[in-house]
Amino acid sequence: MPHVQHTENDDLYAMRHSCAHLMAAAVMELDPDAKFGVGPVIENGFFYDMLLSAPLIPEDLPRIEERMKEIRERNDAYERSMWKLDDAVQYFTEHGQNFKVELLRDLKTKGTTVMNDLKEMEETLGDTGVNEVSVYTTGTFVDLCRGPHVRRAKEIGSFKLLSIAGAYWRGKAENPQLVRVYGTCFKTKKELDVYLWQLEEAKKRDHRKIGQEQQLFFIDETVGKGLAMWLPKGLTIRNEIEKLAVEMENKDGYARVATPHLAKEALFLKSGHLPYYKESMYPAMVMDDGTYYLKAMNCPHHHIIYNHTPHSYRELPLRIAEYGTVYRNELSGTLAGLLRVRGMSMNDAHIYCRRDQIESEFKRVMQLTMRLFEIFGLKDYWFRLSLWSAAHTEKYINEPENWEYAEGILRAVLEEVKVSYVEAKDEAAFYGPKVDVMFKSVLGREETMSTIQLDFAAKKRFELAYTDETGAHNNEVFVIHRAPLSTHERFMAFLIEHYAGVWPVWLSPVQVKLLPVGEKHREYAGEMQARFMEAGIRAAVDMTDETVGKKIRNAEHEKVPYMLVIGDKEASGGPLAVRSRWSKDTVNEELEKFIARAQKEIADRV
Amino acid sequence: MPHVQHTENDDLYAMRHSCAHLMAAAVMELDPDAKFGVGPVIENGFFYDMLLSAPLIPEDLPRIEERMKEIRERNDAYERSMWKLDDAVQYFTEHGQNFKVELLRDLKTKGTTVMNDLKEMEETLGDTGVNEVSVYTTGTFVDLCRGPHVRRAKEIGSFKLLSIAGAYWRGKAENPQLVRVYGTCFKTKKELDVYLWQLEEAKKRDHRKIGQEQQLFFIDETVGKGLAMWLPKGLTIRNEIEKLAVEMENKDGYARVATPHLAKEALFLKSGHLPYYKESMYPAMVMDDGTYYLKAMNCPHHHIIYNHTPHSYRELPLRIAEYGTVYRNELSGTLAGLLRVRGMSMNDAHIYCRRDQIESEFKRVMQLTMRLFEIFGLKDYWFRLSLWSAAHTEKYINEPENWEYAEGILRAVLEEVKVSYVEAKDEAAFYGPKVDVMFKSVLGREETMSTIQLDFAAKKRFELAYTDETGAHNNEVFVIHRAPLSTHERFMAFLIEHYAGVWPVWLSPVQVKLLPVGEKHREYAGEMQARFMEAGIRAAVDMTDETVGKKIRNAEHEKVPYMLVIGDKEASGGPLAVRSRWSKDTVNEELEKFIARAQKEIADRV
Repeated sequence: MPHVQHTENDDLYAMRHSCAHLMAAAVMELDPDAKFGVGPVIENGFFYDMLLSAPLIPEDLPRIEERMKEIRERNDAYERSMWKLDDAVQYFTEHGQNFKVELLRDLKTKGTTVMNDLKEMEETLGDTGVNEVSVYTTGTFVDLCRGPHVRRAKEIGSFKLLSIAGAYWRGKAENPQLVRVYGTCFKTKKELDVYLWQLEEAKKRDHRKIGQEQQLFFIDETVGKGLAMWLPKGLTIRNEIEKLAVEMENKDGYARVATPHLAKEALFLKSGHLPYYKESMYPAMVMDDGTYYLKAMNCPHHHIIYNHTPHSYRELPLRIAEYGTVYRNELSGTLAGLLRVRGMSMNDAHIYCRRDQIESEFKRVMQLTMRLFEIFGLKDYWFRLSLWSAAHTEKYINEPENWEYAEGILRAVLEEVKVSYVEAKDEAAFYGPKVDVMFKSVLGREETMSTIQLDFAAKKRFELAYTDETGAHNNEVFVIHRAPLSTHERFMAFLIEHYAGVWPVWLSPVQVKLLPVGEKHREYAGEMQARFMEAGIRAAVDMTDETVGKKIRNAEHEKVPYMLVIGDKEASGGPLAVRSRWSKDTVNEELEKFIARAQKEIADRV
Repeated sequence: MPHVQHTENDDLYAMRHSCAHLMAAAVMELDPDAKFGVGPVIENGFFYDMLLSAPLIPEDLPRIEERMKEIRERNDAYERSMWKLDDAVQYFTEHGQNFKVELLRDLKTKGTTVMNDLKEMEETLGDTGVNEVSVYTTGTFVDLCRGPHVRRAKEIGSFKLLSIAGAYWRGKAENPQLVRVYGTCFKTKKELDVYLWQLEEAKKRDHRKIGQEQQLFFIDETVGKGLAMWLPKGLTIRNEIEKLAVEMENKDGYARVATPHLAKEALFLKSGHLPYYKESMYPAMVMDDGTYYLKAMNCPHHHIIYNHTPHSYRELPLRIAEYGTVYRNELSGTLAGLLRVRGMSMNDAHIYCRRDQIESEFKRVMQLTMRLFEIFGLKDYWFRLSLWSAAHTEKYINEPENWEYAEGILRAVLEEVKVSYVEAKDEAAFYGPKVDVMFKSVLGREETMSTIQLDFAAKKRFELAYTDETGAHNNEVFVIHRAPLSTHERFMAFLIEHYAGVWPVWLSPVQVKLLPVGEKHREYAGEMQARFMEAGIRAAVDMTDETVGKKIRNAEHEKVPYMLVIGDKEASGGPLAVRSRWSKDTVNEELEKFIARAQKEIADRV
C-alpha cells in the first residue's frame, strides 16, 4: 500500500490543472486587467499566481468559485494548439500578459524558462523547443500550457478554493508580489468533503497548536531550534509512555542501561557513523584527550556494553534497552514542531542473539509492538518487509546465506502472527532486512512509525562474540535494532493528532479537576487533592475566582476526564458530584468508589 | 569544623618529617650504599625517594620498620646546624650522595632548587640563600633539611611503612628511577590504627572496585573519559534514588520538566556562563543557525521555562525540578571514577518565589534535605552558611538590603530546624548567600555533599517577574538553587562507600536470589521469579551448574539480601527456605508472608 503519487498522467492531475485554468478564466472575467503568472498542480490541489487590480481577501473566494461553476456549465472544450513562439509573444503582449511574455522570451533566448526556484513552471510551459509552444484555449481564456487537460469543462469534478497567500514573481523578493490562490479539486463531492474535513481536523489536531494550548512543550529560539522543552504536563504524558514501555520491556526480559549522549571519534569510526553519517551529526568537539561527538544513534554505546563482559551461549539473547537521546544535525530551516527535531529520545533496544534465536526474538518484538499499539488504540497499521536484491549485491553486506535465511524467517513470522504486510524488493538496509511499521493516521496520511532491523554487520565491526556450548569462541552474534514507540518527540506529535488532545485517562496530565464553589471550599479541595495524589491519581484544584460554570467550561476545554464540583455538601463529607467529559450530567458517587474506579481505569490504561 | 591542613608549624608535621629521616637512617644502616633523593611530608604521611643497592619489595618493609624502632630507642637528638654551601657539597660528595650534591649545586647557581615538578623540595631544602644551608644530624644520619623536627627521636609517635612505588629523580623520565617508600606516623598507636583501618576500608569500599565487582557502571576509553556507562544494576540503584527524589519533590509541590542538554550561545551569554565560565564548558558547536554549547548548569533552561508563561503572585512559589544532565570540561588527567566526571545528572530544582516566601521555601528545602538523608541513614552532616562581606562589596551583587535580609532569614531557619552549622564570612556566591551540606564520610573524610543557594542576580538577567496583588508588574523574583542529592555520579560514589556495597533492601539491584538445587528446579524457580517481579520485588535465578553451597556463597558475595534455596520440597509448594545476608540460618516462611514482608521493607525503604 505505497503512498500514491499523482503524476501528470493521472486523470486527477489533468482535472486539477484544468481547474487552475478554470479559476484563472473566472478571475479574468471578474477582473479583465488581471495578469497571470504560473498555475501548477501541487500535492492535493493547485494554485495560480496572479497580479490583480484590487487586493483579494478570503471573502472574495466564493464569488470566484461561483463564476468558475458558471464557466464550467458552459462546458467549453480545452483545445490544444501549437503556436509559433513569436505569435505567442505577440498575442500575450497585446493582451497585457507581461509575465507570460517574459516566460516566452526566456524560452526563446535560453531554450527553457530558467526558474529553478519554481520548478513546476517547466511542466506548465513544456519543453517542446524554442520555436513552438503549446497553448490551451477554453472559451475566451488562452494559456500557455503543456497539458494534459480534460476534454471539456464539465469533466472537472468538485472543487474548492482554499486560501490566499503572497508570492513574489519567480520567487525573488525584488520582483512584484503576486497573490497566490490555492484550491483543490476531486472527482466526487464526497472525496472533496473528506479532504476538507481532513484539512479542518489537521488544523484542530495540529500538535503545535494543542501542545501550546495544553502547555505540553515549547520550542524556544534562545535554547535552539529542534530542541523540545518539555513542560510538566507534556513530561507527565512522556513519562507515562516511557513507564509503559519499561514495564512491557521488563516483562519481556530486557535489561536497561543508561549511556552518555556523546562519545569519542574512535567509537563512531568503529561503528562507521564517521565518515559515512558525519553530515547528519552535530559538529565535533575537540577536548584535551581527543575529539567528541554527540551520538546520532545508540547502537555503538550498546555494543560497547555488550562487549564489556564476556558472554556464554546461555546468556543470549541479551536485550539491552534504553530511552536513549540522539542528535541529528538537520538544517534549521527544515525543523518543525516535534516532527522534525535535532534532539530526540528513542524507545531503543538492541537484541544480541544467536542465529537460531533470530526467529523467536523477531517474533517477540513483533508481539511486543502489537501489544503496545493495542494499548494506544492504534489499529490502522501494517508492516513493510524490505528485502535485499541478489542483483545488487554491491549495496548489501556480502552474506547471501544470511540474507536468504533471515528474510525467510521474517516472512514466516509475519505470516505466523497474521498481520497485513507488503514486501519491498531491494530496499533493505546495507546490514540486513528490516520490517517497518506503516501507519495510516487519523487524517489519512500514511507514515512510517517505527522499524525492526536485523543487523549482520555489527558482529564484525564490534567483534561481538560468545562462548558456545562446546566452549568455542563464536562470533556469529546477530543484532536486532528496534524502537516500536519511535521517539518521544515523534510519537507525542502522532498521539496529539490521534487523540486530538483528548487523552485517555491514564495519559491525561490532570485526571481529576477539583472545582471549589467558593473560597471557603478551597481548603477542602486541597485536602481531596492530596487524597487523590496519594491514591496515584493526578488531581488539580481550580484556584481562580471564576464562577463554577466557567470553571467547568475551562476544565472541559482542558479535556480533563473528571471534574468534581466541591460545595458545602461535598465539603461536609457528602458524596462527590462527578462530571465526566463524556457526559454533560453530574452523577453522585462515594469518594472511595470513585477512587477505586479511577484507579482501575488508570491501571487498565483506558 | 573545616578540614585540618597540616602545615610545617604543626607538631604532626615535624613528627612525620622526623620519621622520614628515621626511615632514611634505617635504610642507610641496612644498605650503606643507599643514595637519597627527597623525603617530604605529604597529606597523611611522608615518603622518601631512594636509590638502593638491591630491589625493594613490600616484604622488606617490616625489617626497615624494626630498624627504625631500634634507632628511635637510641633517642638521638635532631640537631640543626648551618653549613656553608661548599662544605655541604664536599660532605655529601664524600659520602656518595650525588642527588644531594646536585640539589646543592642548583642552589648555588640558581639560588633555588628548580624542581617545579617536585614542589615539596623547596620546603626540604629551604630558601635561606645561596651561601648557607641548614643541615639536620641525628646519630650518624645527616640530611639537608630546613626542618622543623622533633627534638629527640623518642618524640616520634607510632609509625607504619605503607607501600613502595617507583619515581624518576626530579620526576623526569630521562633520570634514574628511584624507589619511593610511603609511610605514616601519628602521635598515638590508636590514631595510627584508626588511620590504617580507614586505609583498609577505603580500599575495600572504593567505589570503582565495588562498581566493577557488582557491575554497576564502567568507564570506557572509546566512549570517553568522565562519561559513566550505567549497567543494569547500577541503573536500578540510580532509578531508585531518582524515584525517591521525585516522590518527595512531588509531595512538596515541585513541577517536573525535561530540558535539552544544550542551548545556543545567546542563552549562556544571557546567563553569564559565557564568557565567565567558558573554560569549564565543552567546546562550541557551530550549526547553520548559530553556535551551540552543552549546558554546564540547568538554571538558564529553567529560567526560560519560568518566562514561557506570565505568572501571577498566586502561582508563586513555582518549583521547577529536573534530574538535569550537565557537562563540565574537566582536564582528562583529573578524571577519576564517578567522583570527577565530565557529564553528570543532577538532582536539580529552582524555586521562584517572592521576597516574603524566601523563609518558608528555604525551610522546606532544609526539611526535604534532612528527610532524604534520614532515609539513606546519613547522620554525620552539618551545614555551612556562607555569607557576604560588606567590606568586599566588589565581590558581590550590590543589593545590601537583600543580603542583610536573606542572611538573617537563613540563619533563623538554621536555628529553627535545630541543626549544627558553622558560618563562613565572605564566602558567599556572587549572587547570594548559600548553605552547603557538609558530610563526614564513613572513612572520616569531610566533604561538601550539596548546596542550597539563594540568587538575587537571576531576576535581573532573565527579567523574572510576576503580577502582584494590585495587578502591578513586580520583578523581585528570588531564585533558590538546590540539589540535595548532588549528582547521580557523586552520590552513587558516596553511597557505595557508605554502604560498602551492602545495599539496603530497597536499593539492592537483586533483592531475592533464587537458588535451584538441581536442573529440574529451574523451571519452578523461574515461575517464582515472575511471581516476585509481579509483586514489585527484584528477583533473579542462579542458572549456573554450581552446587547449592557455591550458589549461596556467590549470592552472599553479591550482597543479595535474601536467598531462597529451591529444592523438591519448595517446588512442590512447601514453605520457602529463606536465608538472609544478616544471618547464617535458613528459616522456613510461607511464600505470601515472605512477599508481604519484603514488600513492606521495600516500601519503608529499609
